[in-house]
Amino acid sequence: MSKSIKLAILGLGTVGTGVINLISDNLDELKRRSGRDIVITEVGTRRQRDDIDPNIMQNSDLMATAASDNVDIVIEVIGGTTLAKDVIMHAIKHGKHVVTANKALLAEHGNEIFAFAEANNVHVAYEAAVAGGIPIIKVMREALAANKIEWLAGIINGTGNFIMTEMRDKGRPFADVLSEAQALGYAEADPTFDVEGIDAAHKLALLASIAFGIPLQFDKVYCEGITGITLQDVNYAEELGYRIKHLGFAVRRDIQGDGQGNNDAAGIELRVHPTLIPQNALLANVNGVKNAVLVNSHPLGQTLYCGDGAGAGATASAVMADVMDLVRVLGSKDSNNESTNGHHVPHLAFIPEQLSNTPILRAEQMITGYYLRVHAHDNPGVLADITRILSDAGINIDAILQKPAHKLGQVPVIILTLPVVESQMNLAIEKIEKLETITDKVVRIRLDELA
Amino acid sequence: MSKSIKLAILGLGTVGTGVINLISDNLDELKRRSGRDIVITEVGTRRQRDDIDPNIMQNSDLMATAASDNVDIVIEVIGGTTLAKDVIMHAIKHGKHVVTANKALLAEHGNEIFAFAEANNVHVAYEAAVAGGIPIIKVMREALAANKIEWLAGIINGTGNFIMTEMRDKGRPFADVLSEAQALGYAEADPTFDVEGIDAAHKLALLASIAFGIPLQFDKVYCEGITGITLQDVNYAEELGYRIKHLGFAVRRDIQGDGQGNNDAAGIELRVHPTLIPQNALLANVNGVKNAVLVNSHPLGQTLYCGDGAGAGATASAVMADVMDLVRVLGSKDSNNESTNGHHVPHLAFIPEQLSNTPILRAEQMITGYYLRVHAHDNPGVLADITRILSDAGINIDAILQKPAHKLGQVPVIILTLPVVESQMNLAIEKIEKLETITDKVVRIRLDELA
Repeated sequence: MSKSIKLAILGLGTVGTGVINLISDNLDELKRRSGRDIVITEVGTRRQRDDIDPNIMQNSDLMATAASDNVDIVIEVIGGTTLAKDVIMHAIKHGKHVVTANKALLAEHGNEIFAFAEANNVHVAYEAAVAGGIPIIKVMREALAANKIEWLAGIINGTGNFIMTEMRDKGRPFADVLSEAQALGYAEADPTFDVEGIDAAHKLALLASIAFGIPLQFDKVYCEGITGITLQDVNYAEELGYRIKHLGFAVRRDIQGDGQGNNDAAGIELRVHPTLIPQNALLANVNGVKNAVLVNSHPLGQTLYCGDGAGAGATASAVMADVMDLVRVLGSKDSNNESTNGHHVPHLAFIPEQLSNTPILRAEQMITGYYLRVHAHDNPGVLADITRILSDAGINIDAILQKPAHKLGQVPVIILTLPVVESQMNLAIEKIEKLETITDKVVRIRLDELA
Repeated sequence: MSKSIKLAILGLGTVGTGVINLISDNLDELKRRSGRDIVITEVGTRRQRDDIDPNIMQNSDLMATAASDNVDIVIEVIGGTTLAKDVIMHAIKHGKHVVTANKALLAEHGNEIFAFAEANNVHVAYEAAVAGGIPIIKVMREALAANKIEWLAGIINGTGNFIMTEMRDKGRPFADVLSEAQALGYAEADPTFDVEGIDAAHKLALLASIAFGIPLQFDKVYCEGITGITLQDVNYAEELGYRIKHLGFAVRRDIQGDGQGNNDAAGIELRVHPTLIPQNALLANVNGVKNAVLVNSHPLGQTLYCGDGAGAGATASAVMADVMDLVRVLGSKDSNNESTNGHHVPHLAFIPEQLSNTPILRAEQMITGYYLRVHAHDNPGVLADITRILSDAGINIDAILQKPAHKLGQVPVIILTLPVVESQMNLAIEKIEKLETITDKVVRIRLDELA
């Protein structure tokens, strides 16, 4: 067997421990597949642990471990964007390959980190950063490498999906399910990152870059959370054949606008928001904490990837898949006989000088269908007023559901529309809300047929 | 840009034409991702075509094209196991990498072909051979490389899945749907390969090898077709919360048998057969000609991969993903500075000297649940007789459905069992069929909870 591969793990939380357990459980499989011995030589941990193999050096100086001569690959599973960034940059400077699960760090500082890695001839691998154990980074960078990606839609936050699933399945309100998710450890004490879509936006920024060959632009992701979703809307959606999921979308728009020259703009939509999707779509049936990504590309068409998006086992699987990739190419040389230190797959799927400056569209330029819930006095003319406003704005109605007046004497009207530029919809809603018969703000949720 | 990569396409049917179209449509994406120009220099075709770019040489001597100095990678999309094998072996001998979609050839002669490729320091890539555009080969060889694969279950024949979907959705009988599939071009004039499961068995043999690190053993795949599935059974299954799909299973059995020392055998089950699976499983909702593979591995758990399993676009996508893999590592050198001619991922996922001789189990040793349909005279004692026989054989009943007597005065009894060794079930059915009250052969279909 060739020389052994020496790993350092920085951070011994759930994921770091998961990696140690995976290597211990599956060492035989790892060796049979790679033809190499794989050894953890050091762990970087501030608190000494007595449950770790005594052959593994425990080092409270994480920077020293990142630069250790006794390490080939540094696995960063500390989290956060400060110390994690420092140790990764330090490891790169010392010629180490890096494997990380840190979506926030890469979404916010990935352009800088990847450029530094390329300058230092090492690779920063990050399969675990998006959708946990689902190999979506490898799939998009390698398996779909011959395709033109048109769009992708993903359930990329397990907490949000658990909440949406429980609301629908058990008819429980948002706040109630959120408390349970916190008790189960699915959601943090401060659930903002999950329920406001920030975590999903981090992952979407990464997916969009490798889909379209654009620099990471987390700050341009449009983001709506799920805190405003009510059981009422969940139930109306079901009645109309749809299900509400919290999705991240990255969409290439070659031509855009209303066809009459208004709001035309070529570019990319990056958005995270609750979305009505058809009940019978596989994506609508991905439940609980599962993640899934649906990719539409030419000429392949739609493919779906589904699995656990978090947890020690799933994350360790992705981290070690990256290690295996590096192991299988470590020390390879390029055709000029110079060391490439491995991987030829570009960090962002496209070679750095080929990243494009395609604009990211503003929210008002985005095109989606809509679910509208309008509360009105039970007035015979109200439906005519609303449909006239929509029609005048060039918005096509796909379905209408008018429910009987409830005890307050108001009639909710549910309208599903075909795709429309958001700026047009904003104007129409403004007009609807000015109607005398309208008693409340219009509730709007985006809708996508995934066609 | 580095030197261009020169491709030869052998065979200009649907897939070959699909590859030409993909390169023409997506050349910009291919160049942006690889940093290389990609050029088709030759096509091997017996009949000259006037709709092909005149810069591409058309050669009716396929062996000459396979060995041409003007070619780096040979794409074999002729099909069949005779000429296709000759051109592939010839290309390997001349130091060409090979990309093929030929599942039958690899399932039957892959051990020989891969060994020859390794001896000649080239790679034979075959993503398109299994599940079309779904990147299941890459996923299992690379993304799951740190996992121990426990089992996989796949819808890996689109024709069969189309037939099962139509039978259930529209209540149409098998023969009727098969005729339509033939008219639509989904099924061949001789549908044997599809409906008897031989095509699925070819793919399963490939999946099993890369899952477990065993040599290709197509001849040991147990295979049942779908020609005997009736609407009656489709409907009873639905009523009990199950759906019948034609699935390929590869299952690792570390301990096997009835727990009392009978039929214990460690080994691998390779089987293709109609299977009842829970209605709410995602796999049960993969419809029409779509394919999907569900993989259960440790520590990742279950992941699902779904998409088009056939067609020009999906197949071309997989073929060109292999080309992109080769392009991104072509000419790389290993750590001893010797040319590896590329790929370090072993053909069968595990390094050749690490392939194991784990036995493939015989059908009688396999463990699955069962759906049984028993027709009996409407006799009060019959259910007691049947359940006693099952109980005596150590077979646990999970559910029973007894329908009212139909016009012939017979009562179908439907029984779902927990997993049992097939030899035990064979004995029990033999006894049931000997009961005086039993009027017909017992219908049996396997059942899997996918848990």
